Amino acid sequence: MENVPENLNYQMKMKDGIIYVYENAEALSMNKPRCLPYPDLETFAIDMSHVLAMIADGPTKTYCHRRLNFLGSKFYLHEMLNEMAELKELKGVPHRDFYNVRKVDTHIHAAACMNQKHLLDFIQTTYKTDAERVVLEKAGLKLTLKQVFNNLNMDPYDLTVDSLDVHAGRQTFHRFDKFNSKYNPVGASELREIYLKADNYINGEYFARLIKEVAHNLEESKYQHAEPRLSIYGRSPEEWESLSHWFIQNKVYSPNMRWIIQVPRIYDIFRSRKLVPNFAKMLENVFLPLFEATVNPQKHKELHVFLKYVTGFDSVDDESKHSDHMFSYKSPKPEQWTTDDNPPYSYYLFHMYANIMVLNNLRKERGLSTFQFRPHCGEAGSITHLVSAFLTADNISHGLNLKKSPVLQYLYYLAQVPIAMSPLSNNSLFLEYSKNPLREFLHKGLCVSLSTDDPMQFHYTKEALMEEYAIAAQLWKLSTCDVCEIARNSVLQSGLSHEEKKHFLGVSYLKDGPEGNDIRRTNVAQIRMAYRHETLCNELSFLVDAVKSEV
Amino acid sequence: MENVPENLNYQMKMKDGIIYVYENAEALSMNKPRCLPYPDLETFAIDMSHVLAMIADGPTKTYCHRRLNFLGSKFYLHEMLNEMAELKELKGVPHRDFYNVRKVDTHIHAAACMNQKHLLDFIQTTYKTDAERVVLEKAGLKLTLKQVFNNLNMDPYDLTVDSLDVHAGRQTFHRFDKFNSKYNPVGASELREIYLKADNYINGEYFARLIKEVAHNLEESKYQHAEPRLSIYGRSPEEWESLSHWFIQNKVYSPNMRWIIQVPRIYDIFRSRKLVPNFAKMLENVFLPLFEATVNPQKHKELHVFLKYVTGFDSVDDESKHSDHMFSYKSPKPEQWTTDDNPPYSYYLFHMYANIMVLNNLRKERGLSTFQFRPHCGEAGSITHLVSAFLTADNISHGLNLKKSPVLQYLYYLAQVPIAMSPLSNNSLFLEYSKNPLREFLHKGLCVSLSTDDPMQFHYTKEALMEEYAIAAQLWKLSTCDVCEIARNSVLQSGLSHEEKKHFLGVSYLKDGPEGNDIRRTNVAQIRMAYRHETLCNELSFLVDAVKSEV
Repeated sequence: MENVPENLNYQMKMKDGIIYVYENAEALSMNKPRCLPYPDLETFAIDMSHVLAMIADGPTKTYCHRRLNFLGSKFYLHEMLNEMAELKELKGVPHRDFYNVRKVDTHIHAAACMNQKHLLDFIQTTYKTDAERVVLEKAGLKLTLKQVFNNLNMDPYDLTVDSLDVHAGRQTFHRFDKFNSKYNPVGASELREIYLKADNYINGEYFARLIKEVAHNLEESKYQHAEPRLSIYGRSPEEWESLSHWFIQNKVYSPNMRWIIQVPRIYDIFRSRKLVPNFAKMLENVFLPLFEATVNPQKHKELHVFLKYVTGFDSVDDESKHSDHMFSYKSPKPEQWTTDDNPPYSYYLFHMYANIMVLNNLRKERGLSTFQFRPHCGEAGSITHLVSAFLTADNISHGLNLKKSPVLQYLYYLAQVPIAMSPLSNNSLFLEYSKNPLREFLHKGLCVSLSTDDPMQFHYTKEALMEEYAIAAQLWKLSTCDVCEIARNSVLQSGLSHEEKKHFLGVSYLKDGPEGNDIRRTNVAQIRMAYRHETLCNELSFLVDAVKSEV
Repeated sequence: MENVPENLNYQMKMKDGIIYVYENAEALSMNKPRCLPYPDLETFAIDMSHVLAMIADGPTKTYCHRRLNFLGSKFYLHEMLNEMAELKELKGVPHRDFYNVRKVDTHIHAAACMNQKHLLDFIQTTYKTDAERVVLEKAGLKLTLKQVFNNLNMDPYDLTVDSLDVHAGRQTFHRFDKFNSKYNPVGASELREIYLKADNYINGEYFARLIKEVAHNLEESKYQHAEPRLSIYGRSPEEWESLSHWFIQNKVYSPNMRWIIQVPRIYDIFRSRKLVPNFAKMLENVFLPLFEATVNPQKHKELHVFLKYVTGFDSVDDESKHSDHMFSYKSPKPEQWTTDDNPPYSYYLFHMYANIMVLNNLRKERGLSTFQFRPHCGEAGSITHLVSAFLTADNISHGLNLKKSPVLQYLYYLAQVPIAMSPLSNNSLFLEYSKNPLREFLHKGLCVSLSTDDPMQFHYTKEALMEEYAIAAQLWKLSTCDVCEIARNSVLQSGLSHEEKKHFLGVSYLKDGPEGNDIRRTNVAQIRMAYRHETLCNELSFLVDAVKSEV
């Protein structure tokens, strides 16, 4: 273990849902926390109301709508004029094509990262060797794999993807509840427990093996990477210990994977089961262990090591669920949030963001890795979700609802907030493929990537990410330059390290425009890069000019 | 070699474009051919004018249009009522799901049966070992692989799918001419000659190896089969000898492949190059060798063996090319067709069909395999193509233009003429995916299958047929029962043997309705089979009643 300073005297305490760090017990008693800045609730609430006012303002809407239309038409012109020239550039690049540019699956859930056929084969394989192994403890009874399948009245040899029934179909459209139950193979929560959980009777051995098989396929493909989501629920403070123990013991690490922690927004369920007394406790369960491992890595070795491979946080759940509470700076503090109601989306986002920021500041000081905030956002539900994420997120997953607000869409364009889109997932859940805005967003210049979300539920072939790209390319008649631009975006917005990004995109990848592009690595035409850069500068200078003329 | 009677005295002679068989020289001199029936030109022309009148008749159009609408709505109802019941049936089937039902790629061209990445890898592999090998003779010069690439100013290591440039893109839409040139890797006919031809300086060795790699992948997948098209042009009578020699010498045989011979409709090119004096000569070059091998297998051993694996004929070319000639029984006979103009589609179809029929009758007598006629039809061009094929074809490829004629569509439904559809190919060439009628045809009950046409030009993943199924299933939200019905159709309409079909579909597969379906093999719900059968019987009995009431 490298030399990370230990600060055994440090004290941590949550206040108003945010963790504060104190040099020692004395500082704690005097309530003098260390300075680890984060935006306070008031600032956030004010900013939010600003943006909310802006997106509702008539003239602003018209302006943004027209600028976006202009961006769309301009790209169309660019395409007509430069399509062949871009293609010529790409043909001239030796040894690099769509197949060997790096692609990152920027949004994928670990518990659904294998396709249905893979899961089926895995279940059958385990049964061949492990039928007599105790794999489950239920109501005090220890059950072997054979007993589990006997109870389900089922012979694994006869199991099919039909009876497995994890694939989304027409029945799941606009039914997130039905979709969630697809995580239970054969509709049996026992099988989910045995095969898709890290914390179970067999210590998540099967789950780890499944993921490692997926990782092995990525490594074989060489050019594909993925950022699977693992869950931390906030039910208890031991979850982190258990998850990192599972990760280390099973050697789940893969050079082609980076990990994201998803926190489901299901406080209401834990509260009604009396697992937590208030919302602050849930936040504490999620964040306090991270502070402890940061301050005292020797005492939390496994978590400390695991965190090296974790690059960010995701916030997940059905966005179409409505919340009665209107979030403002008058909302109850997390310690006072004791009802069974679930806090609204913005409330979750602010508190996750604030804690991550404090944590990042602490970790930066100590030379440790930091975390991105990459919530699911704009898959469904209120447009305010996209406002909260605009103020807090490093990038978002889905972003479909940007369709509905020209102002937000333009803001996401100007700020180049990356968006990991999953049109096949949307097609099964919220929006038909042909209506998906990905192509339009890409053409206008928003920073979009392609991701699979849940291969188990949505994909058919062995190469889920390639299936996703193939369908987009076929259906939207994307050019090679288009798909390589998407692939480049996916690397940019991923949690891959600076060194890896230099290797995959070119040493100057942080520079704007063609200068930042190494066509020999990305296979994105310099003509395209120049177009994107000039267009963005143009939009920004318009705004600057407008502000100047106002003054 | 099994015991096939030799008839060394038999004489063959073409008359009016049809081959006649004579017992011996005497019968020939007395012009007394053996009785091998085929429909004469007059019958065909009269039938054709009947159908043409029918498809133009107002009341008939209205009737068929309404019946087709009814069939569409009826299926919609069926789906709403029985979807869950069908699914339940499928879930109850042990060990059978979409992944392990048999699927046949019913329409695929051998010269494009590998995907672009596969071809690229293959070229690079051959260069590693064979750089110094003479692979091409051009203008009297013998060239090594290295010299070929030097002349093209190219290092195979630097070759990419972009520079290979065999993939169809936006540039090929409605440009069949551009599409055809995509068969030339790097735009260089030399590479097509070396890698994608059976009859070249290296005796088609690379082409055979490529196809065998594709076959190997099919065999590995176990449940996938393909029916690749190999070309016979009719330029010279030696083509068959050469093709069968290539096939036998290179052991191209695979249990997962059955072969179809495609005859391009390019008489005009051969005539203008003075390779043939008239159209009859082209027909003779295509068919006479088959008669000879049928009559005297000992003398044509390789062709005789090759023909065991050939199950049919295809007629191919750009259907959107217009022909000035209006085919009728007054049209010049093939021997008189001496101009540079290309005969129209119907003229080709009739003469191929008539010769195949004579040949089949002869082969049946002798206990030999017979051939299906499976032309490309209705991909583009005149609606009359679909009329000719309705009168002659066992099944067709594409059939898109059935959209345009309710009467023909209804006839194809009533006669259950199988249609091998390739929506991804159409999407790049003639019709956007979302407008493809496959889903509509399937729902109405036409006998459609899915096929890839040209994986080299259209597909992205390693599993082209699965990509085709996946996209159709995703985009049209097909149920498992739908895709398994398509897979079953593909086996039914394929050239697989009766024994294989019994094995893949169930012993009673020739029976109508649920009786003919073994759900444990096909994974098609009996409810679906019953619905299809009852619906078809209902439509047919309507017609019978109408005819009765007329009398």
